[in-house]
Amino acid sequence: MARFIRVNMSSLVVSEEPVPKEYELLGGRALTSRLVFDEVPPACHPLSAENKLVIAPGLLSGTTAPSSGRLSVGAKSPLTGGIKESNAGGISSQLLANLGINAIVVEGKPARKGFYLLHLSPTEAELLEADDLAGVGTYEVTTRLRRRYGEKVAVITIGPAGEMLMASAGVTNNDPDGNSSRYAGRGGLGAVMGSKGLKAIVVDAPGAFNAPVKEPERFKAAAKKFTEILLAHPVTGQGLPAFGTDVLMNVISEAGALPTRNFQRGSFEKAADIGGEKLAETAVARGGKATHACHPGCVMRCSNVYPTKDGEVCAPVEYETAWALGAHLENGDLDIVAKLNILCNDIGLDTIETGGTLGVAMEGGVIPFGDGAGAIRLLEEIRQGTPLGRILGQGAEFTGKAFGVTRVATVKGQHMPAYDPRAAKGIGVTYATSTMGADHTAGYSITANILGVGGNVDPLKPEGQVALSRDLQVATAAVDSTGLCLFVAFALLDNPEGLPTVVEMLNAKYGTELTVGDVVKYGQAVLKVEREFNRRAGFTSAHDRLPTWMKAEALPPHHTVFDVSEAELDQVFNFETAEKAASGT
Amino acid sequence: MARFIRVNMSSLVVSEEPVPKEYELLGGRALTSRLVFDEVPPACHPLSAENKLVIAPGLLSGTTAPSSGRLSVGAKSPLTGGIKESNAGGISSQLLANLGINAIVVEGKPARKGFYLLHLSPTEAELLEADDLAGVGTYEVTTRLRRRYGEKVAVITIGPAGEMLMASAGVTNNDPDGNSSRYAGRGGLGAVMGSKGLKAIVVDAPGAFNAPVKEPERFKAAAKKFTEILLAHPVTGQGLPAFGTDVLMNVISEAGALPTRNFQRGSFEKAADIGGEKLAETAVARGGKATHACHPGCVMRCSNVYPTKDGEVCAPVEYETAWALGAHLENGDLDIVAKLNILCNDIGLDTIETGGTLGVAMEGGVIPFGDGAGAIRLLEEIRQGTPLGRILGQGAEFTGKAFGVTRVATVKGQHMPAYDPRAAKGIGVTYATSTMGADHTAGYSITANILGVGGNVDPLKPEGQVALSRDLQVATAAVDSTGLCLFVAFALLDNPEGLPTVVEMLNAKYGTELTVGDVVKYGQAVLKVEREFNRRAGFTSAHDRLPTWMKAEALPPHHTVFDVSEAELDQVFNFETAEKAASGT
Repeated sequence: MARFIRVNMSSLVVSEEPVPKEYELLGGRALTSRLVFDEVPPACHPLSAENKLVIAPGLLSGTTAPSSGRLSVGAKSPLTGGIKESNAGGISSQLLANLGINAIVVEGKPARKGFYLLHLSPTEAELLEADDLAGVGTYEVTTRLRRRYGEKVAVITIGPAGEMLMASAGVTNNDPDGNSSRYAGRGGLGAVMGSKGLKAIVVDAPGAFNAPVKEPERFKAAAKKFTEILLAHPVTGQGLPAFGTDVLMNVISEAGALPTRNFQRGSFEKAADIGGEKLAETAVARGGKATHACHPGCVMRCSNVYPTKDGEVCAPVEYETAWALGAHLENGDLDIVAKLNILCNDIGLDTIETGGTLGVAMEGGVIPFGDGAGAIRLLEEIRQGTPLGRILGQGAEFTGKAFGVTRVATVKGQHMPAYDPRAAKGIGVTYATSTMGADHTAGYSITANILGVGGNVDPLKPEGQVALSRDLQVATAAVDSTGLCLFVAFALLDNPEGLPTVVEMLNAKYGTELTVGDVVKYGQAVLKVEREFNRRAGFTSAHDRLPTWMKAEALPPHHTVFDVSEAELDQVFNFETAEKAASGT
Repeated sequence: MARFIRVNMSSLVVSEEPVPKEYELLGGRALTSRLVFDEVPPACHPLSAENKLVIAPGLLSGTTAPSSGRLSVGAKSPLTGGIKESNAGGISSQLLANLGINAIVVEGKPARKGFYLLHLSPTEAELLEADDLAGVGTYEVTTRLRRRYGEKVAVITIGPAGEMLMASAGVTNNDPDGNSSRYAGRGGLGAVMGSKGLKAIVVDAPGAFNAPVKEPERFKAAAKKFTEILLAHPVTGQGLPAFGTDVLMNVISEAGALPTRNFQRGSFEKAADIGGEKLAETAVARGGKATHACHPGCVMRCSNVYPTKDGEVCAPVEYETAWALGAHLENGDLDIVAKLNILCNDIGLDTIETGGTLGVAMEGGVIPFGDGAGAIRLLEEIRQGTPLGRILGQGAEFTGKAFGVTRVATVKGQHMPAYDPRAAKGIGVTYATSTMGADHTAGYSITANILGVGGNVDPLKPEGQVALSRDLQVATAAVDSTGLCLFVAFALLDNPEGLPTVVEMLNAKYGTELTVGDVVKYGQAVLKVEREFNRRAGFTSAHDRLPTWMKAEALPPHHTVFDVSEAELDQVFNFETAEKAASGT
């Protein structure tokens, strides 16, 4: 029943195989990272036939577990050169799980230039020629394929950026409304899919919540309890459903940790103009939605539907994107943010990397800071694949090299998200040491650094940041494997019943006897596999560092630099020593 | 007397300091690498104020030792991210040595945008504003500065490529005729110089052979003997003076190791059209020169003066360049080669990296293979700094990413020179393991692989290549420190009196008691310093590899792949084990 779909793009043969025993309890990130580790030569070129794109629903996806619809996509990254897992909301994960598909493994490379479509249904797993979709934007691809296969299908696709093998290209899929905007954006996985000649995957399944469960009654009770836990927490039950993620804009700006004008300052005077409160108000006033679920069964509903003043609809505008295309560019116009967001979605670009890149291009004098119309033009250059577009599409570090800009906020080649590590040092530890390159979701230390969730650790001091980041990175690796949205962590961190309830759901679904301690070991095991892949690919502790200018250039308004020592950074993955220290032995 | 010139581009202060005791017997590469190791943070951005550009004459430069005028330039490389030493002929090394300058250390970064000129003479070491030279090609810069300071000065300069911080940019200096064509080309050192705002260095010294010598009579005898040794060897005494380096074109093509059409084939049907015999014949027929010395006192005179059919003069056309801009691009027109060479020289580009890049661009469909006029246009794009030019100027790996080309022949980000490692496996070991990235001069195994110099090792088999490359890399690191041209190695390898005579010159000059065994230790010490810098910068054995496609794609006509094992590659720098094995203990 549970199976892998293997898509060999060299032979154009699709095959199915039963899930080997040792992979049975792996889902989401744990599964993509393990398959990449087991099957991809670490030294291979990320765009060669040797690399593999792995797509996997989480362990709880396709059940009634609330907010469990995250889809993991993994490969060797063309952006970082290391292992990559990027996950997204949308409806694909639930549908794949309902087809009994634990993973899709896309391997090889077709001989002919051209594109293909993979069609998955209860009765079929077929590869079809799809040259008609070449060069087509993701919105239109999704519209056409839903027209062809029905409104309930999920469409996983790439845009022109992925086809052009750009390292900023993501893999998107649609929400229940058919809106192709749920991105596994980071690390250039869209380019890996593009290199395989795979334009889209249609997932056609009869239901959203039919994945098999060993003990249904026990599961139902646990899922109900978990729903209550999420609804009871102020962030997951009230904050996120009311204003979405963009409620962070004012909070982070006031904390002095909002990277503004390409990391030149830590607060943005127009933060309120692009923040969640303003977004919700404007969206509702224009007939949009301040709250919205990216997949059925999500109780946090942090998404939104934002109509621009020109009548286009961006669904959703997320905080990271509003920062990347707003504060980072000194752009305080939410309609410009939304327009740029729509373009990124359609071209198939990660908004964080692309916003980061535009900031670097502005620093390099390509266009001035704050030039929204110029930014729109630059995204069209990417879509067209002009030489300038091919620079920008390769990301911030590449663009920095092309234009001689050295203030580039990347780690392992990936651009930092919406928190300056000089004023939120826990996230700096995560950026520096994550297997993924600079990634806030890999260990979201903003919780205890700024939001007062899961404790309090002074964001401006180096003390305590390594332990904070370590614990969050381990927990995240586990959560990313369940299919649960990472935002459940807000409740897990504060409610002692949270994690046991997740474990209860897992045990009820799989008939296992896992404990909370096993979850920690599970997360550590994922990180160890990823670290080992990266080590074999040539990464050392020298890569677990922030750019050196962040140790020298003080960030206003706090005028702090990043000063967590290298010796401390090298302790992040020293789990054994950390456990001994914690237990006092 | 012997001193370092320290040029602080942040404060715009030039200072002199006596050479510390531990640096007294370091010259050329040994000195640049040691100063970079001691003073540059391995993690720094290569274009930041933290990097330093070090320029040093060799230990024997400025004396009557024949062919001892090589100039070493070092820094952390913007192309490889590791340590870099690149050396060049020309007259600067001798003049610096005659001023008693063991090294110029350029550090910091000016606050204002603009360019400076460093003027060195027996009485002055001054930094002058030189914004009038911004954007000016190297030929014109040299002409203007020789007009201003006299025809005997040496001008070390960068072109527009270096100013634009391109990773293919080199540092050039002139020959005795004032021709600015002697390049420390590799690794983007021109961009480091550009990042410091230093456009040029004028070296004004009274003579070429006045460097101090402790025991003049002993030195004179040794130098005379070394001259005789060079003149007696068939390569250094006859081959190089007659046809120059480009005599290799037909030889390497016949050996099936001439990378043709971006490493798709190992021989080029038009090799004879761009080879040394044709070059010499055409040059002489048009009033040029088939032989020429790049600095006074060179007995090998491997350079040439090639007038194109349009009346432009390229001096010289070297083998590596004729390959990179010829066979690699499927271009069999020597006049196109010369025109492209002139453009590279003037714009300030490494011909090997630039030719490599054009091949990748051709593979990516930017222009067709063999399109000479198109290649000329692309170089003009680089000069103009258009978006396309900014892609190409960053080198082959960068261009491969921009255009989605995966057959890119680079190691550590640097493009391979004119020997395909699948048909000349010793050079493959050097490419893979050198601290410099793919670099033939780092351990020129073509000697025993193809030329029958220093023994014979079958080029198509993996056996014996590691030992061959190891010994040559050690010897090269020593030779590169003396200021002697690497071509003396042909004689050193075959004539047992060669190396003792070099040691005799060193002892006579410095009053030392060095032995031949000390030279081996000296070379090993240089490599160890470079390896350690690279290790700290994040390099591991995973970086000591050829691109994986060279293990899979067989090269016609021999249909061989690169099959020296990774375990063997990891033994290249295991000097102790190698010595034990050699001595049978």
